[in-house]
Formats: sequence, C-alpha cells, structure tokens
Amino acid sequence: MCAIVGIYGNDNAARLASLALFSMQHRGQEATGISSSCGGKIYTKKDRGLVSEVFNNEALEYLKGNMAIGHNRYSTAGGDSILDAQPVFAKYKLGEISIVHNGNLINKDQVRNELIEQGAIFQTGMDTENLIHLIAKNTKDRLRDRIREALDKTIGAYCFIIQSRSKQFVIRDRYGIRPLSLGRLKSGGYIVASETCAFDLVDADFIRDVKPGEMLIFAEGHDEPESIQLFEPEYRPCAFEYVYFARPDSVINGKNVYRTREDMGKTLAKNDVNNSIKADMVIPVPDSGVPAALGYAAQSGIPFEYGIIRNHYVGRTFIEPTQEMRNMKVKMKLSPMKSLITGKSLLVIDDSVVRGTTSKRIVKMLKEAGAKEVHFRVASPEIKFPCYYGIDTPNQDELISHRMTKDEICEYIEADTLEYLSIDDLKNSIGNDTNYALESFDGDYFVTK
Amino acid sequence: MCAIVGIYGNDNAARLASLALFSMQHRGQEATGISSSCGGKIYTKKDRGLVSEVFNNEALEYLKGNMAIGHNRYSTAGGDSILDAQPVFAKYKLGEISIVHNGNLINKDQVRNELIEQGAIFQTGMDTENLIHLIAKNTKDRLRDRIREALDKTIGAYCFIIQSRSKQFVIRDRYGIRPLSLGRLKSGGYIVASETCAFDLVDADFIRDVKPGEMLIFAEGHDEPESIQLFEPEYRPCAFEYVYFARPDSVINGKNVYRTREDMGKTLAKNDVNNSIKADMVIPVPDSGVPAALGYAAQSGIPFEYGIIRNHYVGRTFIEPTQEMRNMKVKMKLSPMKSLITGKSLLVIDDSVVRGTTSKRIVKMLKEAGAKEVHFRVASPEIKFPCYYGIDTPNQDELISHRMTKDEICEYIEADTLEYLSIDDLKNSIGNDTNYALESFDGDYFVTK
Amino acid sequence: MCAIVGIYGNDNAARLASLALFSMQHRGQEATGISSSCGGKIYTKKDRGLVSEVFNNEALEYLKGNMAIGHNRYSTAGGDSILDAQPVFAKYKLGEISIVHNGNLINKDQVRNELIEQGAIFQTGMDTENLIHLIAKNTKDRLRDRIREALDKTIGAYCFIIQSRSKQFVIRDRYGIRPLSLGRLKSGGYIVASETCAFDLVDADFIRDVKPGEMLIFAEGHDEPESIQLFEPEYRPCAFEYVYFARPDSVINGKNVYRTREDMGKTLAKNDVNNSIKADMVIPVPDSGVPAALGYAAQSGIPFEYGIIRNHYVGRTFIEPTQEMRNMKVKMKLSPMKSLITGKSLLVIDDSVVRGTTSKRIVKMLKEAGAKEVHFRVASPEIKFPCYYGIDTPNQDELISHRMTKDEICEYIEADTLEYLSIDDLKNSIGNDTNYALESFDGDYFVTK
Amino acid sequence: MCAIVGIYGNDNAARLASLALFSMQHRGQEATGISSSCGGKIYTKKDRGLVSEVFNNEALEYLKGNMAIGHNRYSTAGGDSILDAQPVFAKYKLGEISIVHNGNLINKDQVRNELIEQGAIFQTGMDTENLIHLIAKNTKDRLRDRIREALDKTIGAYCFIIQSRSKQFVIRDRYGIRPLSLGRLKSGGYIVASETCAFDLVDADFIRDVKPGEMLIFAEGHDEPESIQLFEPEYRPCAFEYVYFARPDSVINGKNVYRTREDMGKTLAKNDVNNSIKADMVIPVPDSGVPAALGYAAQSGIPFEYGIIRNHYVGRTFIEPTQEMRNMKVKMKLSPMKSLITGKSLLVIDDSVVRGTTSKRIVKMLKEAGAKEVHFRVASPEIKFPCYYGIDTPNQDELISHRMTKDEICEYIEADTLEYLSIDDLKNSIGNDTNYALESFDGDYFVTK
Repeated sequence: MCAIVGIYGNDNAARLASLALFSMQHRGQEATGISSSCGGKIYTKKDRGLVSEVFNNEALEYLKGNMAIGHNRYSTAGGDSILDAQPVFAKYKLGEISIVHNGNLINKDQVRNELIEQGAIFQTGMDTENLIHLIAKNTKDRLRDRIREALDKTIGAYCFIIQSRSKQFVIRDRYGIRPLSLGRLKSGGYIVASETCAFDLVDADFIRDVKPGEMLIFAEGHDEPESIQLFEPEYRPCAFEYVYFARPDSVINGKNVYRTREDMGKTLAKNDVNNSIKADMVIPVPDSGVPAALGYAAQSGIPFEYGIIRNHYVGRTFIEPTQEMRNMKVKMKLSPMKSLITGKSLLVIDDSVVRGTTSKRIVKMLKEAGAKEVHFRVASPEIKFPCYYGIDTPNQDELISHRMTKDEICEYIEADTLEYLSIDDLKNSIGNDTNYALESFDGDYFVTK
Repeated sequence: MCAIVGIYGNDNAARLASLALFSMQHRGQEATGISSSCGGKIYTKKDRGLVSEVFNNEALEYLKGNMAIGHNRYSTAGGDSILDAQPVFAKYKLGEISIVHNGNLINKDQVRNELIEQGAIFQTGMDTENLIHLIAKNTKDRLRDRIREALDKTIGAYCFIIQSRSKQFVIRDRYGIRPLSLGRLKSGGYIVASETCAFDLVDADFIRDVKPGEMLIFAEGHDEPESIQLFEPEYRPCAFEYVYFARPDSVINGKNVYRTREDMGKTLAKNDVNNSIKADMVIPVPDSGVPAALGYAAQSGIPFEYGIIRNHYVGRTFIEPTQEMRNMKVKMKLSPMKSLITGKSLLVIDDSVVRGTTSKRIVKMLKEAGAKEVHFRVASPEIKFPCYYGIDTPNQDELISHRMTKDEICEYIEADTLEYLSIDDLKNSIGNDTNYALESFDGDYFVTK
Repeated sequence: MCAIVGIYGNDNAARLASLALFSMQHRGQEATGISSSCGGKIYTKKDRGLVSEVFNNEALEYLKGNMAIGHNRYSTAGGDSILDAQPVFAKYKLGEISIVHNGNLINKDQVRNELIEQGAIFQTGMDTENLIHLIAKNTKDRLRDRIREALDKTIGAYCFIIQSRSKQFVIRDRYGIRPLSLGRLKSGGYIVASETCAFDLVDADFIRDVKPGEMLIFAEGHDEPESIQLFEPEYRPCAFEYVYFARPDSVINGKNVYRTREDMGKTLAKNDVNNSIKADMVIPVPDSGVPAALGYAAQSGIPFEYGIIRNHYVGRTFIEPTQEMRNMKVKMKLSPMKSLITGKSLLVIDDSVVRGTTSKRIVKMLKEAGAKEVHFRVASPEIKFPCYYGIDTPNQDELISHRMTKDEICEYIEADTLEYLSIDDLKNSIGNDTNYALESFDGDYFVTK
Repeated sequence: MCAIVGIYGNDNAARLASLALFSMQHRGQEATGISSSCGGKIYTKKDRGLVSEVFNNEALEYLKGNMAIGHNRYSTAGGDSILDAQPVFAKYKLGEISIVHNGNLINKDQVRNELIEQGAIFQTGMDTENLIHLIAKNTKDRLRDRIREALDKTIGAYCFIIQSRSKQFVIRDRYGIRPLSLGRLKSGGYIVASETCAFDLVDADFIRDVKPGEMLIFAEGHDEPESIQLFEPEYRPCAFEYVYFARPDSVINGKNVYRTREDMGKTLAKNDVNNSIKADMVIPVPDSGVPAALGYAAQSGIPFEYGIIRNHYVGRTFIEPTQEMRNMKVKMKLSPMKSLITGKSLLVIDDSVVRGTTSKRIVKMLKEAGAKEVHFRVASPEIKFPCYYGIDTPNQDELISHRMTKDEICEYIEADTLEYLSIDDLKNSIGNDTNYALESFDGDYFVTK
C-alpha cells in the first residue's frame, strides 16, 4: 500500500508534498518522509508517526528547494521500524539520489541474493534498496539509462519517484497495477501522486494518469515533463484499490472510487439470491462500507441506516481491558445503534472479509444489541489468495475463504445469510473496458516481467 | 456541554468510569478526570488531554475503590486550563468531597459574589466551586441536607454527581435540561452517565433517566439507590442535544437521537418551499449532518450521496499554511467528491448554523469543486439567542441569525437557496409529548429557580 | 524547602523570575510556577517539571506585566501533584491574589480546622491556602491590614510573597528562619529571592536580607519599597541551609555558604578525636560534601582527592535493574575512583546523615573498590529530631541518630570510625553573632508565635 | 569520540551493555544503540537521546540473546541524525552483521570513492559503512579473513566491535590510538569497552587493554577469546583522552586518568614562569579542570577553592534570552562564587582552550564578579592542529592557537597572565614509557597504514 508524491518546480515543494501526504494518510500511518533537492544537495527528513506530527515548520524549513518527493509507510514488521521509512537516500557514483516506492517487487529476493552474491550489503528490509543498488552498479553515464536497465531486472508492481540533485524520474510498471496520477499545480509546477485526492488539497488540476510502462522526466529548462515509454504496456490496474484502499473521492483509471463502490452495492442487491429475505434496513460497516451500502439500499429499496457509529478517538496507548473486559476492542471502535436495530432484520455491508475475525465480532455485537437477523453482504469477491502486488494481506492460511466455503464462513461468523460479490460482478462494477488485476480473488498472478 | 459519569458498587469502578468517558469523548476533549473513593479516602487524577491519553494503567491502579465519578471537559478560556479540570475535590467540615458537573448555573455570579462577600475564596473559574462552598458553609449534620439546601440557592441547568468517602449523590435540575441516565452494570453495581451510549461499552442495562428534580443516593447496605424528589419537576430537556450534541446512538427522554435527526431531515423535506427545485443529490456535512440528510433523501426521493469526505487525521499541531495557502483549513478537514458533484445541483444538509463562517467556506469549496447549485438546508431553526444552559455558544453579536435575515444569510454564504427547520417542526420531530428547552431558538429563558 | 522569587518594576518580570527560579532549581525540582500581574489581571502558569521545561517562550509571553512572583516545589506526596504547585491563585473580596510560600506553618492543622469549622473548603494540601482564607475572611479594607491580621494567626517558619493586581507584599517570619534577600535589578526594579545566587544570573545587586518580622510593600509611585516591621524580631535563621540546602555561592545572613561549609570541615579536623589515625586522603561525597572536605584537608594536611565521581546523567525513567543487579542504584549515581583508593585509608566527608542507608551504601561501595579503611566524617551534628520549619525530614523513627548511638551507627554503616560535628562547633563555624535555629540537632522547637 | 561496548556470554547481555553505555554517556549524548544476537538473528534498537531515555524495559526485552554490542554517538551534522546512529546493521553474503566503531578512518573518502566507483551505495555519512562494504565485497569464506583483508585497506584510528549471528570480533588499530579494554564479568562472560569506568557499574574485573593491532574473537565453545595479532603494533595512544575526554576514574594504558590530570596541574605549577605572582587561590573550571587544579594547588601551596559552581539542570530547550539578556549563556552553566573571589587574585585552571570564546567569557564573568586578577592556566599544550584521529575538533582556522600567539590570546581573553603546559611536560605527566599521540599539539600526523 503506502502513498507517494512528487512535487516539481514549486518553491513550496516540501510544504506541498506534506499536504499531499496528509491527504493520503489513509494509505499509511506508521512513518512518513520527504526528500527535497536544493543547490546540488538532497535534504531528507523522515520519522515514525503521522504527517501532522512529523512535519512541523522547522522540518519544512530544513527541506529547501523547488522539488520534493514524499512517502507514507503502511507498516513494518520488526523492532526498529524507523530504518524502514522512506525516502531511501544514497550517495553513489553519479552523486546523490533519493527514492520513494509504492508497490512490491516479486523478484526482490532473487535480485537481492544476486546482489549480495556480488558483494552488496542491505541495511533495510525494503525492496527500494534493490533498485538503488541496480542503479549504482550500472555503468551507463546517464541516470535515465541506469534506471531503465535497473528496471529491466525488476519484476513486480511498482511506482517509483526517483530524485537526483536536479531531476525527478517517475516510473509506473507496465501493468499499471498501483495508481499514479499527474497534475498541474495552480501555484506553478507539477505534482505526481498515488491518489487524485491529493490534488484537491494542494490546488492542482488533474492532467492524466501516468501510463503503464511510462517514465516521466522532470528537468530544468523543460516546461513539460519528458515522457518515455519504457515498456510495452499490459494494463492491469489493481481492483482492490476500488474495493477498499483508495479514498472515495479519488479517481483511478478515470473511475470515481465512490461511484464504483456504489455500483458494487447495487450489483450485490441485484443478484442477491436471498432477495426474498426482506431485511428491515441496510447498514454499512463504517467508514469503507458506506458507498456500497448506499448502492445496495438504492437498488433494493430497503432503507439505508447508519446503524453502526465509528469512534474516531481510539488512540494507540489506551488501557488494556482486564480479563473480564475482553471482546471490548471492537466495541471501542464500533458502536451499534441499539434502539435502531433491536428486533430488526439487518442487511450489513462490509467492503471485504479477510480473516473473518472482525466480521464475527461485528455480527456478535449486533445480535447482542438486539438484532433479530444479520444478513452479511460483502462488496467484493472471496479473498482466496494473498496479494503479492503491494497490498498487505496475511498468509494464505489466514485467509478465511481459503480455508472455508461460503456456508462454513456464514456459520463461523454466525450470520443468518452471507453473500459475496462475484468476480464477474466486480468486473462489471468497475468497468469491462479494462482488464483489472484480480489476483486476490482469482489467483491469476499475471506479473511475469 | 461536558460529560459526567458515576460508577457505584463495582470493583473496577475507575476503569469502567474511564471507558464510559471514552465513549462520551465527543462531549469534551480538552481535559478529563476521575475521583475514586476507597477506605475513607478520595483519590483524584485529572489532566489535559483525551481519555485515552490520561488514563493509562498506572493512573487506573492509583484510583482504587468500588466507586468513582468522572468528567470530560469541553473547553476553557485562559492559560492554565488544567486548574479548570474536574472533578473538583475539597476537604471540608464533614470530611472529603469530590464533584463533577455538567451544565451552567445562571445565578453563579450572584452566588459567588455573596460567598466572596462572606469571605470565601475562589481558586478556579468553575461554577462547581460554588456548590462546594454552599455545602461547606451549611451547618446541617448530614451531607444530603447540606446538598439540598445548597441547591435551594442554585439556579440553572445542572447535573451533579457528588462523591463523599462512602456515598454518591446524583442530582438533576428540576427542568431536566441536561441529560442524565441510570443503568445497571452486568458486572455488578450501577452507572449514571450523561448519555446512554456509555452504557453499551461498559455492558450496562438502561434502567431509566434520572428524573428532573430528583436526587439519587448510593450508599452501602442499600441494594438500590434511594430516590428523593428534591424539587417539583418542570420538565424541559434541551432540544440542542438532539440537534447536534449527543451521539446518535444515545437515547434521551426515550427518544433515539439518530431517529430524531432523521425526522428533522424528513420534515425539512416535507416543508421545503423550494421543493420545486429538483436537486440532483442530497449531501450531508459529515458527521453530524448525516442522519438528517438520510431523512431528507428518504422523504424527497432525491438520492443521498456521501459527497463530502471528512478527514479524521487532523491533529492539533500541524503546519500553519503560508499566506498563499489560507482557506485550506476547511479543506484539510472536509474534502468534496469532485467527480460526483461537478455540474450537479446539490442539496447540502448541516445540523445547524452558528456564526456562518464554516457554512460559507463549505459552499465556496463545493462551488470550486464544480457544483452547479448549492441549496443549503439546516436541520434546526435559526439560532438567535445564546444558550445559558450549558451549551457553548458565542456572544449574541456573533450569531449570524441575530444579525441577518434568512435571505441575507443566504447571500452571505453564497448559497443558491437556504432553508431552516421551523421551531414548530423541530418540536414535532422530537415529539410533542414534552415541552423542550428551545432558548437558543426562541429566547425563552425559562429557568427561574 | 522550595524557592520563591518576586520581581517588581521590570518589563521582563516573568522572564527574570524564570531565570531566578532556574538558578534556584536545587531547592525544588518537582513543579514550578509563575504569576504575573498586568492591567488589573493576574496571569498564572504552573506545571510539573523543571523550570527549563515549563517556561518556554510561549509561557513567558502569556505572563504579561512588570511584576511577577514564582516558586519551585520540592516534592509532594500523593497522586495529582499538579494541584499542589504554586503560586496559589484566588479571587476574593478585594479582587485577585496570588501567593508563593517557602516554609512550614506549624499551627496549620489547627488554623485549617478552625477555618473548616467555619465553613471553609480546602482544595489542596498546601498551607498557603490557609493564608488566603485568613486574608479573605478578614473584613479590613486594605490588603496590608488583612495580611497583617492573617499573620497574627499564623505560627511557623515562612517567607511569603503576595501579589495583588498592582502590588507585591513580601513577608518574613519574626525568626527569619527561611532565607530571603532583597536586590536591585540593573535593568530596573527590584528582586526578592530565597537565595542570593539568583541575583547573579539576573544581574542584580544585593541590597540586604529581608528582616525578620518585616513586611516590604512594592507599589506604583514609590521608588523604594515601603518597610513595615510587623513583628518584634527574634532572629533564628536556619542552620541547615548552611549545612546542606543552599547553593554554595549564596550568602545568607552575611555569611557565604561555601566558606561556612569549609569552616565546618576545618573544625571537624581540629576536633577529630581520631586524628591519630593518619588517613591517606580526604574524599568528599559529591557535590555537597566538597567544601567541608576541602576545609578538613586544609586543616589536617591530609591531601584532598576527588575520589568519588558523580554521574549527572541519571534520569527519572531508566531501566529497573533485575534482581541480580540491585545495589546498583548508588553506583549509577556515584562512582569510586578505584585506582586512587585501592589499599588506601580514606577519610570520607558527607554533609549530613539522615536515615543512614546512603552512608552504608557508600562505605560498602568504597570497600568493594579496595579501600583499606573508611573513616566517615559528617560535617553536621547528629540529626535526632524532625524539622517542622520547612526542611523535608522523615519521621523521627526513620532518623538513624534517634534510634542509635554514634557507635551503633558506625557499626551499622560498617565504617572504621565515625565522627560528627558537635552542635557547639557548628555554631562556631557559622558564627556566634546570631542565634541559629538548630531544632533538628537539639530539639529546641522555639517557634511559639 | 563516541563510546563502544561489547558483551559476550552473559544472558543479560543487552542490559549490561546499556549500563556500560550509561557509564560512558560523557563520550556521546546525541544517539545510542545496541545490537544483540540470538538464535541466528540480530536485533537492533537505536535512537536519538540519552541511554536512560532510549533503553527502557521494552527495548531491553526486545534485545534478546547472550551477546550484544553498543554505541554512544557524540554528534552529527545535518538534519536527520537518526540515520547516523550506530550499530550499523547489514545483510550480506555470509549472513547478518552489525558493527560499532569509535575512531576516524583517515582514508575513508578515498576508500568510499573507490567503492562507489565499483558501484557501491552509501546511505549514511559514517565511515563504519566503508568497513561493511569491504567485508561484503571480499570473497573469502570466513568472516575473520574478510575482516582482516578489509582492515588492510583501512587507515586510521579505530576500535571496531563486529557482531555476526554467533561471534564477536574486537579490533584495535595498530597504534592503539583510541582506548579499548577487556574485562571479565563476575556474572559470567566478557566485556570490552572504551573506558574501564564501564567495568565498575557492571561488576567486571579488568583483565588488560586490547593490544594495538590485535583482533579478539569471541565464539561459542571457547572459554577464552582467541587473540590474533593482525598488525605489527606501533603504540601511540591518544594523549587527549587524559587531557579532557575520558572519565577521571578510568584507567588507560595502565594510568589512572585522574592522577594524570593531577600531575599535569603539578607540572604547570612547577614551571609557572609567573610563579612570582602569588595568586590568592586556585580555581578550576568545573568539572574537567578539577584534578589539574588540585595538583596545581598541592604543588604551589596556593589554596584550592571551588570558586565556580556548575549548574547541572541546563536543558536543551530553555528560553532564548532576549537581546538584553545575551552573554547569559555561560552564566546559566557556570556561576562564580562572588563573595569568595571579590578583590582576589585568581589562578584559574581549565583543561584546554580550543576556540577561546568560552575562556574569554569565563574571565569576563570572574572579573565582573569582582576578581582583582585572573591568571589563566591551561593543563594542556596549545592546540594548533585539528585532530583527525577521532576527537571532534573544529577547522584549523577556528583554533585560536593556530591564529594567535600566547600573548595575543592572553590579551584576547582579557586574562592577566596565561600559561600552557608544554608538550614535553604533558609527556612527562602521562609518562615517558609510551610514545603518545600528540597530533593536536605538534601536528605529527603519524598514521600512515
């Protein structure tokens, strides 16, 4: 997951980058960082924490220059996660370089092992380090050629923004799996960001998505970025961005995320084999289940109700409930509208089911709050396969749809009925004009180069 | 505003109090505190910050005992706000006492001046200090009699929970202006809290609202609280709790807040003099405008859309935007769904309009995002009078409805049309069985004793 | 203990007060606070922590005005110590008032009980609250008369600085037990502070000590403070300030603290009944034992060596050593110079022995480091009585000299020999011109009015 | 500067390492870190701040295993210093490796450039990264051989401790410039540390110094570390450790640091060309000038007095004095004993003079406090050359002794007289048995391999 941003040609580059990262905070809350370039030197500030915690005025004043790249990190395993924050900075033969990356390189272990075999050292667990090594070991004179050849050895889902002391290089993999869009800042210069929701806050106009397989080069003396088609495109943007990850006001591949989710809900309703069941109300699991629930309600005519309240004050360090107080965790985050649902038959919509534990707790909480029936609807297909293209999914064994049939899951989570969106219906909701990446649902691991 | 809670007869008293305060965090985020009683001693911990920040395990272990009272503070003016946190603790003739208070005493200055005239000192700006003085100066032998006589001199909207070293006294003013409910903890003992949403998290069953003019006394050796009717009730619960302040899953005076807001939206739609205008969608200002918008949409048949996203990561210390970046403040909190609203006619629903500045910014933001028309609907009547009964409203001069007519406000906020709920419709939405307090809308300052 | 300061007639009043408190940080590290007066309003900022942590620029800008009083607090028992920070502020009949206090009122419980009997409430454990009540209940028109009559009911060791909205009143008890000096700021106006070491940092010239029983009044329109002799003086300044508490560069009652300590060491040497023992070196327990050790060395001719290093990095939150690592606590703070002392006979000088536990650990540490003999010398008499005049001593039962004879103590701490300064010698060291307060040593609790 | 430690063969390895680092905090306060090895995995925790802040129990429990290495960092330039904290960890061909380093590699730029030329990347500014690269690029099968060959390419002053997943390698350069000692833990296993003061706190017995050019290898199955003489020793330990850097209770090259400083003071006195001047007292600049001042006083017969008090509460974030309050900085840290020095002729002893600014401020402060004469004595020779062997000295242009003669300096700092220790006398004080490194004084940059 993660979010990346590049700002080029604006004197407020770092400040704008921090605002763009702020509006993409939902893509990663563990760590954040920005590198700016000024006068032949790269300045970097990165740390654990939210964008609003890390980037105070002091930090932003340190990050001089009219170009900047930034990153929000989703999560890291291990003890000293600060080392795994991005941008990754290095000195190498051509000077200084700083890189941000959103995605996952599927041949990273192989490349890393080859590099290690040749004497390279790796100081972090990030695959971003691979790319720097490949660029550094290359012997070409121009950075653009080094990047190109480094990418020839790189297989996976990726969006990179690479900043040298005077240029920015933006690259999206040939499949265009992870989103990346280009905009023009009204205050001057360009922005590239994982999601278009970043454009609104910094006052930028959307130009177009970065193309699959494209490299954009921002350099002084050029009014417009140079575009080089590095690879033959085989467009397969990630369907999961629409299902869950992107912010609803973003537009990916020309489709508004919110509208797509609404369509998923509508389709769920149309095909609901249990539509004989007349639920009293449609209830979303907030916040991500809301658009699909609105769609389901609009299609089915069953009234939409905001039957579960989400508490946004949940901090990281609150009291550990004592033994008697367990099971309270989901209730601290989600509160059922008791008086609304008591004695009612509910049609509950969530965006996806991964391990099944949260769904089970939600059903239990609703029944304890008096719900007569809970019909669980999932606005995405069954997740049977781990994602290797940049979404953090658990091991296959932990995926409940890998281990159980739909009926077994329904029984496990103690719902009255359970339905998923079919893969075909998901495709229809997003649009059949594009061949979306669906590997979590169909196991088609199509990335081969 | 503020929230109060009392727990009696449970060995986890402070822990449960902290959880109840956590679920009432929306009523006050500036400071929080708890006093427990154990072995003839009162323990107090209070500080600036959120419940989840102040009450770590160390604090909760310090707060020994099977009874506790707690408080969330909304805001204070001035520099050293920690002194204005509650509970207020004092030693006095009968021993130790600790008090929490939600409300506002309208004769507080007069009482304070009389007390000062008699030689009393006041160390804080809180009217809670008045009550302690009145109790302390009284010469009756029993605390209950002292409280009673102190309240005889107290005019206003109030809910008090008073804790001595072995008892708890709960009092609600004769008008029942501020909400207060009684519940039974499944793990043993009782809870009294400003809102019933607190009951769900601590696993308590709602028993009933504390009655207007009632004093409940919790004491050892009594299975049930003793109830004393202190004053002739003249029930006038605050309508503003339904409009804006309470959490939607709470039930006040037997009415679910969410449902009431939904009704307000429906009534707005029914009476909309502009209902000839066919807006393309109904959009709430999140989060509090959502239920009314759902009601409006259901009534009018215009589709409900979640057209404004709320960013919950906004911290307190983030970067000050530079001069060029002003006007960004509302955009950091609220993001319009550009692709949804471009070229559309919007019917925007907010819960209330106080100063008008935020409404103006929202309209501007929506128009800049491409809205063709913005029809602004307010799910409450015009606020023409400051509230003196416990809701933080600004001076009358800052209330836009005091200074401008509806048409002038419409022009000022640059909306295409503007409608409010009428006072009669507000009454109908909440229910005509009770005579609600409406002073912010009609200026009827009814509290006289 | 504690430190107090008053600044009058300087536009940088709060800033200078913070610097004075900073230089008196050794008198109290738990909490600190300042009240300033400006335009008929008193501003207060107080919090837990060191002066350098609490008073940032923001706090100092809030504390407007050309007069300010401040306080460093030594320690408080109990959980919510912030409430026991000073200054204590109150509104009362004549307006606003803020008080700082160094000392201890010995009739405080009696006065408090009388006040409580009359209906007063006490919100803190501080005796400072007594004085405000006495002032507030008084019916005189002028604050100076109220203060005077309040002090008539006050018995104890005290230095008060009382600030109204336009004046400052400085009072020292008739015995002059706690130190308090007056100086003139080179940048304009006056300073009153517990120790003269504060004058150096703020660039002030020492004028004189505040006299026992004197009240100084600073008011607009008067170039010099008005002096009123409230009580017949019976001068008995605290000897313990010279022994341990004051900073060595301070001057109290015309005597330099450092020189006095040096004299104590010299006298110890002169009278040493074991002077037949030829120790190899004189070693101080740092930092407070240094001057006496220098004096002992100079007198005896035995070389002075800095044989124990003090580690100043000890923080509050460091690792709890595991079971095997106990006894390490004293070693984290004090490190013996192994190679210096191995095989040597040491004459170790500490300023005082209270409970005996630290002395025992120091002897053990030195012997483990190879010392052949440890002769323990204490530059003060045996502490047999608790101090009720403002120094934090433990209960009498915990005072080792109350429970044991000198020989028993010597055996308990496992020293080879042990000697104390006699009471007469202490008097001689400080000077026989004044009748010092020696209650910790001789049990003469002389304060009666 | 910096401090390093290695613990081998003790189940409390990380805890002991943290205590050792705690006692060497004076060698670096900016950042600290520890790597432990357990079960074939290396665990690392490093962060900005003091040892007592970074290593709480949670951190120490994460650092599992019976071997650990640690580091205190003195300072770093630039904005994101956390990246320059040690240990430096990397994965490479033989597995995992972690390194701590005290010293400075004088051919680091050349080695780095060669490595970069060959395609290496450098992510930090630390020369420690060089060594990891050299080890990783090497093709030998055994780590010990790789280390040996990497060191063949390394010129400079260094102490390394290298930890693999099961072994520890300790190396000191052939000159033995930076100190490093070996001890045996009473609780089992070994310790290697920059200073012997670390041994006392962790209860270890000093065995011997690590020899110049020696490599010690700690490995399972060996009761004692294997010793390999890597290089022909040419022993030149750093004289500056005695002058200023080491803690006085440490023993380096068999010499107690405190005693050596005392000798320097004695020698200063013996040779004082101004010994006709009879100063009234000898005063140290605390804390590091104390032993030399004691020596000077003992030799000259002039009494030693503690005439300057050092304030240990100085924090990092205290108020910036306003314009009128400048020059206060040195006074916040050092306070003159006014009443002691007024009208007196002072002989002030500091350990060294680098830029001259602090000396100038001290003289000024003493004269303002009333000193009649200030005779400045420096217990080390004139520093005319920057140190490239691991001590942080400024550029040569900033060294006052490079720009001015002794007389000019005396005039600049406004002292009455000024004397330094001669280089020969410094040698005599430390001992003529060893050829010490004196490059800061004599410019003899002897390191060539």
